[in-house]
Amino acid sequence: MRHGFITLEGPDGSGKSTQAALLAEKLQRMGLPVVLTREPGGTEVGVRLREMLLDPDTQLTVMTEILLMAADRAQHVEKVIKPALENNMIVICDRYIDSSLAYQGFGLLGDIRPVLGINEAAIQGIWPNLTILLDVEPKVGLRRHAALSPHRSSGDLDRIEQRDLAFHQRVRDGYHALQNIYKERFAVIDTTLLEIEEVDQKVWEVVVQRLKVGIC
Amino acid sequence: MRHGFITLEGPDGSGKSTQAALLAEKLQRMGLPVVLTREPGGTEVGVRLREMLLDPDTQLTVMTEILLMAADRAQHVEKVIKPALENNMIVICDRYIDSSLAYQGFGLLGDIRPVLGINEAAIQGIWPNLTILLDVEPKVGLRRHAALSPHRSSGDLDRIEQRDLAFHQRVRDGYHALQNIYKERFAVIDTTLLEIEEVDQKVWEVVVQRLKVGIC
Repeated sequence: MRHGFITLEGPDGSGKSTQAALLAEKLQRMGLPVVLTREPGGTEVGVRLREMLLDPDTQLTVMTEILLMAADRAQHVEKVIKPALENNMIVICDRYIDSSLAYQGFGLLGDIRPVLGINEAAIQGIWPNLTILLDVEPKVGLRRHAALSPHRSSGDLDRIEQRDLAFHQRVRDGYHALQNIYKERFAVIDTTLLEIEEVDQKVWEVVVQRLKVGIC
Repeated sequence: MRHGFITLEGPDGSGKSTQAALLAEKLQRMGLPVVLTREPGGTEVGVRLREMLLDPDTQLTVMTEILLMAADRAQHVEKVIKPALENNMIVICDRYIDSSLAYQGFGLLGDIRPVLGINEAAIQGIWPNLTILLDVEPKVGLRRHAALSPHRSSGDLDRIEQRDLAFHQRVRDGYHALQNIYKERFAVIDTTLLEIEEVDQKVWEVVVQRLKVGIC
């Protein structure tokens, strides 16, 4: 039984982490066993990789970044996601394979094929049953993201955030392309004009609709 | 001009590091510009990855290990190997793609195809012009390797060395298979019964033979 794997995707500032936590809480209150996790950094090894990936002083080549993200994912799938699903738990993951396809495939390489090949090896068949894409206009997302981190000035973005707006536009377009490729597992919520509570409500509607048929 | 890429391969204790250094010294004495490097750990990022890969306390899954080695390699190719070759330097590398194919492909997975696919993405066409395989009977190699590290007892092997003898036999057989697949770039020296000076002499013969035609 591997029917409870939900991923949250979207550009920076789309509210993924907040919504993942709110969703986990609601499902837990229903008495469902939930694992709330994230990428990169969902394992002990992953935490070390996450530091390297987000460190603004690290000069990673594009292919190194792709392979490190995939390494983090392989470890996470095998040690956290797969065992939880095998125990019939619901797994809610903040970013997964679609982040690599959108950021590294569409955003950096302009080609998802090598990224897809490497990540298919990493996930070993463990695709999400439901992917909630929290869409947001890139400028709004970046502004929101900066406001959420009051201790950081705009000169204080991490390595991946520092990339320019054109890059973030390619990422957003990439997510829209993925939504068309993987129609069945994608649900999209445009958060540009919504408050957190409104997004929460919409996320819950999507999940409840799928819960009826066992989140599959 | 990318005709000066020499890799040294072989099981632990075959004498790769020693021979790589001796070869680099001889070429340098001839006035040739040489870069002597190694994998994993040939870059700043790679040093951090090498620590994770060899740490006996790290519980890496097989796929994570494959992807981390490939990430180290992608960084190394782009930052060190490719620029050096473009500047007409000779690059001598202690372990490269064949180590992943032998250890992770033949040794761990029993299938080189996923390892080859991931590593082809990592090296982006930068194959060695000459690969010197220092062959050794696994038991002899492991014993030699332990003797070379006098500060370490046999209970003090790194994570990759700790694997059993059957694994090391599969790695050796894997190297022999690679030698048959990539006949043109492979030269094999059986070091089982040889002293360091004798291996050095044979390595030099192989390189001199290729030097006549520009190490290609």
